[in-house]
Amino acid sequence: TSLKVGLIPGDGIGREVIPAAKAALLALGSDIPKPEFVDLLAGFELFTRTGTALPEETIRVLEEECDCALFGAVSSPTRRVAGYSSPIVALRKKLDLYANVRPVVSVAANPEDKPSVDLVVVRENTECLYVKQEELTIGEHGKEARAIRLITERASRRIGQMAFEIALGRPRKHLTIIHKSNVLSTTDGLFRETVRGVPSLPGVNGKYDGVEVAEQIVDSAVYRLFREPQIYDVMVAPNLYGDIISDAAAALVGSLGLVPSVNAGDKFVMGEPVHGSAPDILGQGIANPLASIRSAALMLRHLGYTKGADRIDKAVDEVIREGKVLTPDLGGKSGTKEVVDEVVKRI
Amino acid sequence: TSLKVGLIPGDGIGREVIPAAKAALLALGSDIPKPEFVDLLAGFELFTRTGTALPEETIRVLEEECDCALFGAVSSPTRRVAGYSSPIVALRKKLDLYANVRPVVSVAANPEDKPSVDLVVVRENTECLYVKQEELTIGEHGKEARAIRLITERASRRIGQMAFEIALGRPRKHLTIIHKSNVLSTTDGLFRETVRGVPSLPGVNGKYDGVEVAEQIVDSAVYRLFREPQIYDVMVAPNLYGDIISDAAAALVGSLGLVPSVNAGDKFVMGEPVHGSAPDILGQGIANPLASIRSAALMLRHLGYTKGADRIDKAVDEVIREGKVLTPDLGGKSGTKEVVDEVVKRI
Ligand SMILES: CC(C)[C@H](C(=O)O)[C@@H](O)C(=O)O
Ligand SMILES: CC(C)[C@H](C(=O)O)[C@@H](O)C(=O)O
Repeated sequence: TSLKVGLIPGDGIGREVIPAAKAALLALGSDIPKPEFVDLLAGFELFTRTGTALPEETIRVLEEECDCALFGAVSSPTRRVAGYSSPIVALRKKLDLYANVRPVVSVAANPEDKPSVDLVVVRENTECLYVKQEELTIGEHGKEARAIRLITERASRRIGQMAFEIALGRPRKHLTIIHKSNVLSTTDGLFRETVRGVPSLPGVNGKYDGVEVAEQIVDSAVYRLFREPQIYDVMVAPNLYGDIISDAAAALVGSLGLVPSVNAGDKFVMGEPVHGSAPDILGQGIANPLASIRSAALMLRHLGYTKGADRIDKAVDEVIREGKVLTPDLGGKSGTKEVVDEVVKRI
Repeated sequence: TSLKVGLIPGDGIGREVIPAAKAALLALGSDIPKPEFVDLLAGFELFTRTGTALPEETIRVLEEECDCALFGAVSSPTRRVAGYSSPIVALRKKLDLYANVRPVVSVAANPEDKPSVDLVVVRENTECLYVKQEELTIGEHGKEARAIRLITERASRRIGQMAFEIALGRPRKHLTIIHKSNVLSTTDGLFRETVRGVPSLPGVNGKYDGVEVAEQIVDSAVYRLFREPQIYDVMVAPNLYGDIISDAAAALVGSLGLVPSVNAGDKFVMGEPVHGSAPDILGQGIANPLASIRSAALMLRHLGYTKGADRIDKAVDEVIREGKVLTPDLGGKSGTKEVVDEVVKRI
């Protein structure tokens, strides 16, 4: 058997780092089924060339032929572009990848030591302001734009369940619900209450008894994240807060170029580095490939290939710990290729 | 003549820090018109006692009798409370205090040195998700909650103008627009374009020519805020992003207990520390009074009493720089009262 992986490099450095993830998967040998790759199109650059940011064919191949996928990054238009809509947001929704799981872990100098930051952001991935129901009207004083923020019990429940599962599998078993229900009492109130209600759902039967639940209002959560990151273990958040919080957490571990994620649903999983398309460093060969490589590991972990995932993660940690072959975002002098070679050598 | 100041301590440590601001104003002597204070009610605790979080009388006195005001903090209910709505959000709207101006400045060890963080968050204060138009319906899969996010041209224009004014008055004259128009192309698109359009408004006549304009997507703005805060000078943002960003920035200068703000409109100004009601330290006499004292200074500055404002700010900076009399959030061992005495002595 084989493991069919859809590769969607997208824009910018997405195209420079997805090959790194591919190389890492290939290096695993018999620890995973033989990987087969299929290159798929999506992105803003594709849109400007063809008028389509996410071809039907990409979705079809992912749904019908692939076991999993890796997504690179998309560029954001610098002004409003008629007809364009972010392909990553659309992909998450079309494949019902309802959870965006983003572990943010620092690498301790000594492998025996505890990392100073060790948390997982579990971000709801299909609704909140990302439903993109916006309208523009003309009022008495000029233009008025409105967007709908949707929070449903169903989506809050399944992201809540995912977060409890993840918390249960970690030593600390601690879960913080992020919300702003002091202002958004109905939407964030629903999110908070639904997540809190997960342990009493029918069929749960005390399974989550060991999980300790806390909560934080989003603004103060970001403040405390910087001041005392060690208070967090698993953080569960509606879509937009999760987006902001995971970038904030990434700042704590040295670089966005280190932080992986998976977009996970009940049937499919897609790895994706948390960083963007980074037009400022495009084409210089210095994009950090580690977030992309770690995203491949996270994808494997999600599929149950723990041994393969462990080998990749260990190799990445070693390279970081040694500190000799790193890209400039981490204070190093090496290029993408050298870092990939170094990781592959250790896998 | 006198300066009539409405005092609204609100909940929690709001009641411990507002007297500090009062003491600082009283210490100024003839640098400002003789201050007269009027105590006004608002808050969650008031709501639980009386069913009203913001009495009509409070608004009436502010509008008809006061020259300015100082607000402490409000507690957030820990579960949904029927009929309760945040009085600070309501006050900002009722008094049309459309700008929340939050300078975040670190105190350099040497008064001659430049502070490592020196930025101002200019937060829109009346709309975005704070319009609180929420509804709950029952759909096929359970409860569905929706909130409206409103962005208008009018509100974006006036906050944009305020931000350009503030940038113009600062040495760097640099303005960063914070948005998420890669997802919210209509609402955040309108915010971004309207702010960008401020220099070409009729009557502006090249006034803002010296201001350099940049922009950042909110998630990456928070990331960069932690990594390289020196890139920012003035940041202008829709309401919720501004809320999060100002807390994030506060983490960079040592404590939320240091960061002041004013809620400013065309006719009225209300100082307010950025911190919350901090129930965890309530009643211990250790709340940091400096954010509240600095909010009084910022309020004076806004009213044109520059000399009084300078004297307060200088006294606060000295106390921080000396580092002998500080509250525990700054690593000190002193209580609120001792810190207030120390500041007042130096004013
Ligand atoms: C590119 C953008 C649409 C995306 C998001 O907001 O989800 C990105 O910031 C992310 O975190 O994956
Ligand atoms: C208490 C809350 C409603 C308020 C806000 O969100 O505006 C607070 O966080 C602030 O920043 O002043």
